[in-house]
Amino acid sequence: MTENGVTSRRGKVLTIDTINPSVKKVEYAVRGPIVQRAVQIEKELKEGAKKPFTEVIKANIGDAHAMGQQPITFFRQVLALCSYPELLDDPSFPEDAKSRARRILQSCGGRSIGAYSASQGIDCVRQDVARYIERRDGGIASNPDNIYLTTGASDGIVTILKLLVCGEGRTRTGVMIPIPQYPLYSAALMELDATQISYYLNEDSCWSLDISELRRSLAAAREHCNPRALCIINPGNPTGQVQSRQCIEDVIQFAAEEHLVLMADEVYQDNVYADGCQFHSFKKVLFDMGPEYSNTVELMSFHSTSKCYMGECGFRGGYMEVINMDPAVKEQLTKLVSVRLCPPVTGQALMDLVVNPPQPGEPSYTTFLKERSATLNVLAEKAKLTEKILNTVPGITCNPVQGAMYSFPKISIPERAVQEAKEKGVAPDMLYCMNLLEETGICLVPGSGFGQRDGTYHFRMTILPPTDKLKVLLDKVKEFHQHFTQQYS
Amino acid sequence: MTENGVTSRRGKVLTIDTINPSVKKVEYAVRGPIVQRAVQIEKELKEGAKKPFTEVIKANIGDAHAMGQQPITFFRQVLALCSYPELLDDPSFPEDAKSRARRILQSCGGRSIGAYSASQGIDCVRQDVARYIERRDGGIASNPDNIYLTTGASDGIVTILKLLVCGEGRTRTGVMIPIPQYPLYSAALMELDATQISYYLNEDSCWSLDISELRRSLAAAREHCNPRALCIINPGNPTGQVQSRQCIEDVIQFAAEEHLVLMADEVYQDNVYADGCQFHSFKKVLFDMGPEYSNTVELMSFHSTSKCYMGECGFRGGYMEVINMDPAVKEQLTKLVSVRLCPPVTGQALMDLVVNPPQPGEPSYTTFLKERSATLNVLAEKAKLTEKILNTVPGITCNPVQGAMYSFPKISIPERAVQEAKEKGVAPDMLYCMNLLEETGICLVPGSGFGQRDGTYHFRMTILPPTDKLKVLLDKVKEFHQHFTQQYS
Repeated sequence: MTENGVTSRRGKVLTIDTINPSVKKVEYAVRGPIVQRAVQIEKELKEGAKKPFTEVIKANIGDAHAMGQQPITFFRQVLALCSYPELLDDPSFPEDAKSRARRILQSCGGRSIGAYSASQGIDCVRQDVARYIERRDGGIASNPDNIYLTTGASDGIVTILKLLVCGEGRTRTGVMIPIPQYPLYSAALMELDATQISYYLNEDSCWSLDISELRRSLAAAREHCNPRALCIINPGNPTGQVQSRQCIEDVIQFAAEEHLVLMADEVYQDNVYADGCQFHSFKKVLFDMGPEYSNTVELMSFHSTSKCYMGECGFRGGYMEVINMDPAVKEQLTKLVSVRLCPPVTGQALMDLVVNPPQPGEPSYTTFLKERSATLNVLAEKAKLTEKILNTVPGITCNPVQGAMYSFPKISIPERAVQEAKEKGVAPDMLYCMNLLEETGICLVPGSGFGQRDGTYHFRMTILPPTDKLKVLLDKVKEFHQHFTQQYS
Repeated sequence: MTENGVTSRRGKVLTIDTINPSVKKVEYAVRGPIVQRAVQIEKELKEGAKKPFTEVIKANIGDAHAMGQQPITFFRQVLALCSYPELLDDPSFPEDAKSRARRILQSCGGRSIGAYSASQGIDCVRQDVARYIERRDGGIASNPDNIYLTTGASDGIVTILKLLVCGEGRTRTGVMIPIPQYPLYSAALMELDATQISYYLNEDSCWSLDISELRRSLAAAREHCNPRALCIINPGNPTGQVQSRQCIEDVIQFAAEEHLVLMADEVYQDNVYADGCQFHSFKKVLFDMGPEYSNTVELMSFHSTSKCYMGECGFRGGYMEVINMDPAVKEQLTKLVSVRLCPPVTGQALMDLVVNPPQPGEPSYTTFLKERSATLNVLAEKAKLTEKILNTVPGITCNPVQGAMYSFPKISIPERAVQEAKEKGVAPDMLYCMNLLEETGICLVPGSGFGQRDGTYHFRMTILPPTDKLKVLLDKVKEFHQHFTQQYS
């Protein structure tokens, strides 16, 4: 053997040319190159580099706590009690927190959150989720057997997509997703080697979903693949719209007629800010449409602990409700999730608290209500503020942020900048966001990472920074946009 | 439209015939039919059913806390402090727990474990993992950039397998796994549509790994696929052997010569009980073999918070260290893990504590040491007890449980029982375990769920039940085996 040995003569087993080609094609803009550069700039600042700014403001990801949002006290008390049950004897913890912790611990193997749970999730948590859904949907029954706890909503979505994938060539599974979309969808479909079917939201009408566009997109897709599912994100990410009841009904009818599984990403169900807007769950509308629909349409709905008023992303909690799933398929689903043993139990516990928060009369109720309202009210203010300020900038047009946590404004990019981007081999809005980052320290995600109509450009910006910081951020964006436009005119 | 509507005329979109065929082929015995039946029997008992036993004893899964093992106090204190930082002012918590919690919180966005972490894991945790590995391996350098925190070890293993998969037909990726194996491997390979290459452990020689068997298995596989990786589980699951240093060296040389990625599942690294046995990490041996190997062989090593002395399965914590991975591939890996955002932060925090436990001189040190030793000593006792009692049963042969948490004894099954199983369409050891469950309430997993040489039968049994219960369990198994043998003779 030579000094370099057998293996080095042959080179690596795993090289960029020999890894899974589907993995190579995956893109995930929310944590893409722009965010990597932001992290690098943060390090440079720490090491004393001189920049035109003193801190990086990350408005790239819906990470509420990182932006200073405070956790709900009750939730964290219960989690501390579950983690260290000796605290159950501590008189400084409220009784309702203790009783919640005891209930969760009693459902855990050996009364420890360190035990595996059932793969589908802890029994009592699934029961609480079902009861929450019933309350939310005006009494429509929810069966705990249809609830699967998940490792964040992403996990549930990928699992259902995994069930759906089959076929090759013209029979390959196609899945309809909105454009703009949350890039988990495109990434998962790429990884699973399924076909992405894009339907475009109508930017001129507050990012509404037009059934005619669904029809167009489906008809085109049927030429080359086998469309099997339709994904909806409501309230919208990255687009912030809230769907009307009528629109949801139309979508359900469309799915029924066209024989598609409905996947409803409803993780922002508490994040509705605009007057006249209201969250309608797909489940509720489905059941209101009568048994012809409620007994047949296969609907999967996803929720999470990461968004709404709690913003507990790090816990990776979530659930999905599967409706009208064939029992034999459900058996396969249960088997599939069992391979990963169980979702994190602390995330399950947190999910339980979200669906079963303090009730009127309980000691923690007032504080809980105050904390929840404070967070949601501030978010509503920031949603309005963002829209208002962005719309004062010539060359930026921003739809109302009706819900969720993001604005997705359209930006005009001068032709010379488009040319320069082309020469550099990057998307024009990537050039824009990269310049913004280097000049101001503000980290946004280019619209191209979410998809957009050809020739249009956008960025996604969270509304999560604290109000003063958000104002600074918006002013800087305004100034930058004017400067960028001049620079390239 | 008829009363049944459009969709019901067509039936479900997702049926057992139209789901992902790879999902259908997945099997996962550790939570398979026998465990489902055990859960059902538990319910029947609760509802007052009369059985020849009063409780189900689950020895099917390495779930320490569910079997009554107590968590390490220090770990849970820090987790409680991280969950509810108001406790940092509570004088009843020791200072070292507080300083650990502060350090973790300072590394979290917004100082909250509710924020997403970097997808690769929290910086300071990865640094602590690297330092742990350096101490473990006698000073061999570990780079935090090579550490990826994971959602349990399973997540890391599946992620690496995902990178490896490519090709079709004769160029399809093949992965060598031991037989018997932990069924995560076969399940993941099935799901990813890769080829399982089985190499058999040598039962007659304490489940040792023979290089000649690796050669045989690889040569046979090269006829029909493209072998790219070799998985090793050490200490062994389900087989409980601990590999010798020499054997590890031979395996590394084999992998180098045959151009295979090495995947070392080392989650039981603290679970070594037998005299004369010692855990040697693949990393340490690789580097001891000199630069010819240490600069070339691609090695991925996996660890977890779920096993060893802590047994914190529910937190889904883990890490992997990737050595000699091509930088371009590492970039792809980092991108791939970013799609799922981050591993659960509480699991990351726990991983940090495992690799950076209380040190001499710190207030929690003595208690920590006492708790850890107590757990490991009891496990060592139970390992010996299990082997001893099982070997008193005619028709059961049990190798020493040198490490990990399981015994995997060979059982003789009378020909008439084999026939009956065949008629019922189940594996003979499944019939055995199912009868055992129905007659005694003991839940074990049949050897067929892990793989075994044709014509041999086994079961996997954890050594985790408390000593008195374990004795009862072993006596019942003994009695059952004698009865089963008579019944079918």
